[in-house]
Amino acid sequence: MAQGMTRRGAILTVGALSLAGAANAEGQNRVERWGLYEIALPATAVGNPFDVKLVGVFTNGRTTLRAPGFYDGEGVWRIRFSPPETGAWRWTSESSLSALDGRQGGFEAMAPGAGNHGPVGVVETYHFAYADGTPYRQIGTTAYGWTHQPQAKRAQTLETLKTAPFNKMRMLVFPNASVKTNEALFPFEKTGAGEKDWDLTRFNPAYFHRLEACVAALGALGIEADVILFHPYDGRYGFDEMPAEADDRYVRYVVARLSAYRNVWWSMANEFDILKTKTDGDWDRIFQGVQASDPYGRLRSIHNWRRLYDNCKPWVTHSSIQNGSAVLDDARAETYRSVWKKAVVFDEVCYEGSLSERWGNLTGPQMVRAFWHGLIAGTYVGHSECFPIDGGEFWLGEGGELRGESAPRLAFLKSIMEAGPPPGIEPIDKWWEQHLGGAPGQYYLRYFGDDAPAEWAVDIPRDEITGGERFRADVIDTWNMTVEPAPGVFTLAQKDTKYFFHDPARPTLALPGRKWMAVRLTRVA
Amino acid sequence: MAQGMTRRGAILTVGALSLAGAANAEGQNRVERWGLYEIALPATAVGNPFDVKLVGVFTNGRTTLRAPGFYDGEGVWRIRFSPPETGAWRWTSESSLSALDGRQGGFEAMAPGAGNHGPVGVVETYHFAYADGTPYRQIGTTAYGWTHQPQAKRAQTLETLKTAPFNKMRMLVFPNASVKTNEALFPFEKTGAGEKDWDLTRFNPAYFHRLEACVAALGALGIEADVILFHPYDGRYGFDEMPAEADDRYVRYVVARLSAYRNVWWSMANEFDILKTKTDGDWDRIFQGVQASDPYGRLRSIHNWRRLYDNCKPWVTHSSIQNGSAVLDDARAETYRSVWKKAVVFDEVCYEGSLSERWGNLTGPQMVRAFWHGLIAGTYVGHSECFPIDGGEFWLGEGGELRGESAPRLAFLKSIMEAGPPPGIEPIDKWWEQHLGGAPGQYYLRYFGDDAPAEWAVDIPRDEITGGERFRADVIDTWNMTVEPAPGVFTLAQKDTKYFFHDPARPTLALPGRKWMAVRLTRVA
Repeated sequence: MAQGMTRRGAILTVGALSLAGAANAEGQNRVERWGLYEIALPATAVGNPFDVKLVGVFTNGRTTLRAPGFYDGEGVWRIRFSPPETGAWRWTSESSLSALDGRQGGFEAMAPGAGNHGPVGVVETYHFAYADGTPYRQIGTTAYGWTHQPQAKRAQTLETLKTAPFNKMRMLVFPNASVKTNEALFPFEKTGAGEKDWDLTRFNPAYFHRLEACVAALGALGIEADVILFHPYDGRYGFDEMPAEADDRYVRYVVARLSAYRNVWWSMANEFDILKTKTDGDWDRIFQGVQASDPYGRLRSIHNWRRLYDNCKPWVTHSSIQNGSAVLDDARAETYRSVWKKAVVFDEVCYEGSLSERWGNLTGPQMVRAFWHGLIAGTYVGHSECFPIDGGEFWLGEGGELRGESAPRLAFLKSIMEAGPPPGIEPIDKWWEQHLGGAPGQYYLRYFGDDAPAEWAVDIPRDEITGGERFRADVIDTWNMTVEPAPGVFTLAQKDTKYFFHDPARPTLALPGRKWMAVRLTRVA
Repeated sequence: MAQGMTRRGAILTVGALSLAGAANAEGQNRVERWGLYEIALPATAVGNPFDVKLVGVFTNGRTTLRAPGFYDGEGVWRIRFSPPETGAWRWTSESSLSALDGRQGGFEAMAPGAGNHGPVGVVETYHFAYADGTPYRQIGTTAYGWTHQPQAKRAQTLETLKTAPFNKMRMLVFPNASVKTNEALFPFEKTGAGEKDWDLTRFNPAYFHRLEACVAALGALGIEADVILFHPYDGRYGFDEMPAEADDRYVRYVVARLSAYRNVWWSMANEFDILKTKTDGDWDRIFQGVQASDPYGRLRSIHNWRRLYDNCKPWVTHSSIQNGSAVLDDARAETYRSVWKKAVVFDEVCYEGSLSERWGNLTGPQMVRAFWHGLIAGTYVGHSECFPIDGGEFWLGEGGELRGESAPRLAFLKSIMEAGPPPGIEPIDKWWEQHLGGAPGQYYLRYFGDDAPAEWAVDIPRDEITGGERFRADVIDTWNMTVEPAPGVFTLAQKDTKYFFHDPARPTLALPGRKWMAVRLTRVA
C-alpha cells in the first residue's frame, strides 16, 4: 500500500527517505492546501528504473491533475502532489511497471496554515500575487551555487536570509565549475574517472535530495526558489552540452521532483544566449517540456546575456531580464512591459560589490536606485552582492553572509511597496517623462534618482482626476530610510494645461536637495 | 489582345486610363526592372465587376509570381506587375470571367534607369537597403491627408518634397474627417445621401487613380510611400468600422492596385489601438491578407498609440513605433531593436510645431535631437510639422509647405548617415551607457544631446579593437550643421580597464561646450 506523507519542514537534514516510519498518521491522510503530499511506491524494475513511466492522477471531482512520478533510488518511486483546493482528493497511479500501476489512495486537503499563501502567480498582467490573493512584492536575490556548498555554509545562507528582505532566490540546479562545489554530489551517475563520464539516463537521488531540502528551506522562510535549469558556467562537467534527449529527460525529472513545492519558479536558463549548443528552438522545446510536465503551471522565464528571447511566446509567464542600464531610468524599464505585456523582473542589473568586472561593482546606492527606478516603472528588480571573502567566495556565487549596504534599504523599499496599492505599482502617463508610478487617482510615487531637487512641482497627470481630490504627501529618503509627512493636504484643480491637475494654493513641495529621494502622494479618504 | 503599358511618370494628371492610345510600343514590350508593367483587359461582367477574380501569373523561367488584377471601371480590368529581374517575362491570366481567363503576353525587363534602385527591404536585421544594394537611410515625414487635397496643394507638397531631405512619406488611404478633404472623392460607391451610405463591395476607381498618382509622384522623387490602410480619425464615413469581409476586400483591392509600385510600404494602421472595433486577431488577419496578396513582399508594419502590437509576429517586417520619449535617450530607443530583433522606425515622436497639444510642440532642436538619439541607437526616426497656416492647416495633416527649422538639419543628418558605414549604424557596447553608434573597429559616432561638455574622454569599447588602430576625429555641430576635423589622429592602446582602449597621448577631445554636438571617429586606412 502506498505511503503518503508531508516533508515540509524536514529541511536541511533530509537525505534518502525511508519508506516506513517517516510517515505519520496525520501525514498520510491530511495535507495543507498548497502543501506537499507524497506517495512512496516500492517496486522492482527490470532495466533502468529511471525509465519507468509513472504518473499520479489526482482528482477532487472538479479538478483533475496529472502529477508525474519519479524514481528516487533504493527501489522506491515517488509521486508528489500539491492540492490546489481544500477537501477530499483521490488518486490513482498509472505506470509502465505493473507493480506501480493502478495503485490508489486518498487524503484530505485542509485549510492552509499560517504563512501558507499558496504559490505565486501573475496577476493583472504585470504583477504577482500568491494564490490566496496576497500581493507578492518581489525583492529577489541570487546565490547561484548555494545549494552546492557544505552544510554549514548552506545553514549560514539560510540564517542570513532569515533577516534579509529577499523573497526570491535565483539558484542553479547544475553545479557551476567557476564556483566552489564543496560537496562531491553530482546529478548523474558516474561511469568513469573523467569529469564528463556520466550516465545521463540515471540520476543521483542524493543530489536532488539536497536540492529539495534547499527549496523546502527557502519555502519555510517564505522565499520563492527560482530554479535555473541550465547555465553556461560549466566548461567542466558537460551538463551544458548534453543531447536534446538528455536535456528533456533531465527537465522531466526535475519537474517531477520539484513542481509540487509551491515556492518553485522555473528559469529555463541563466544567460541562455551564451549556451551556444542550444538554439531558440531548443529553448522553445524546453519551455514546452516544463509546461507539459508541471501540473501547476509554476512561473516560467528565461534569463538573457546580450540577446533577448522572445518573451511574447505563450509559455513565458514573465520576463526575466539582465540589463543594468534599463533600471537607470524608469522609461527604459517600462519598455519591457509595453513590448511583451507581461510582468517584468530585472533579475540581473549588475551587483553591489567590489569586483573589477563592471557587472560586480555597484555601490549600495546604485543597487538601491535600480530597485526604485524599476518600482515606479511597474517592474521588479533583483539584488546580489560580490564582496569577496577569504578564498574569493561571495554571496552571488555561494551564498553565506551579506556584506553590502543595500539589503536594509531594500527592506525599507519593501515596506513602502507593501503599504502601496495592490497588486503593484503602475507607471503613470507613461512615455511622457513623469517618472511617476502608482494607481491613478489614488496613489502616486515620484522617484528622483540622482537628481537632488530643492522642490517638486506637484503636477498630477489627468488620468482618473476630475478636480477636488485631496492628497497628503510624504517625503521619502530611500537611502536614509525615513518617511517625513508634509503638513496639510493638496487639493487638486485643473492646471493651465489640460494634461495636469495641481493645487494652485501650493503648487510645489519642498525637498531637502539630497539624492535618492521620493515623494508619495496618498489620497485622503 | 491585352495591352501592356507603363505609366510611371504620368503622375498628377492621371485619371481614368484609356485603353487604346495610352500604351506605346516601347511600353508594351519593355519595362525597367522594378518598374511597373500594366496589362489592361476589357470585358463585360455579369454582376459586380469588382467580384471578378483575376490574377496574372508571371514567369521568367526561374521566378514565378502571381500578381492580382483588379477592376478599374469603364469595363476594364488591369494587372500590374513589377519585374524583380531583367530579361524576358511571360504572363498568363487566370480569371473567374472567361473573357479574362487564359490571356497571355510577354515583355522584356530592361536594366533599371538612373535613380531606380529597386524596392526597399530590410537588410542585416535592423537596416534598410534598396534591392540593388544601395543603403536606404530612412528620414521619414508624415502628411496624413495630402492625397485628399486639391491638385494645387498636392503640387505644392511635391514641390516642398523636391528640396526636402525626406525619403519616406506616411499617408492615409482613407479620408480623415478631422483633416480637410477638399476633393469630393471617396473610395466606395455611394448608395444614398448619408455620410455612411456606401456600397462596400464597389470601389471608386477615380479615388484610387488619385492615390496612385500620388504614390507615383513620390516615387519619381525617390520617396517611399508608407501607405496607411486603416486609421481611427474617421468618425464620419464609417471606414473605421467596416465588417471584416469589407476590410479584407478593401485590402485586396488596394494591394492589387498598388503593390507593383516599388516605393510602396504597407502600414496596417495608424494608432491601431484606438480602433476599438478591431482586435489583435483582426490585425493579424489583415497583415496576413496583405502578405498573401502582395507578390513582392513590400515592407509591412503597424503603428501604435499607447499599446504595442507584437512585432515579433512573422508578418511584421519592421517596427513602426509612436513614442516620443524613446528617442530622448538612445538606450530607450535601442530596446525596441533588442526585444524584436527587427528594424525599428520611430515614425511618431511628437512633431515640431506650435500646437498646445503636447504631441505637436517640439522645438526644432528637439525634433532634430530625436533623430540623432535614434541614429546612434541603430534605429530610424520620423518627422512632421504642426505650424498652422490660415484655416488651421499644417504639414502633418495636409502637406503643403514646411515652416519649421528641423528640415535643413535633417538634410545635414542624412549627409552624415550617407557618409557612414553601410547599411547603417549599430549601437556599440549597448546597455553600458556609451551613447555610441557605428561599426566597431571602424567608425564611431558619439552624440551628446542636451549635454554641453567641454571635452570628451575618447574611450573606445574593446569590441574589434586590439590596439594600434588609428582614428581621425570630427567635431559635429548637429544644429549649426558644421563638421570640424580635429587635428592629428588617435592611436588606440589598452586602457587601465579591460573594457576600453584609448590614446594615452591624447585621452580627451576638446568640445565647444554647446548642446547637440556629436563626435565622429573614422578609422585611418
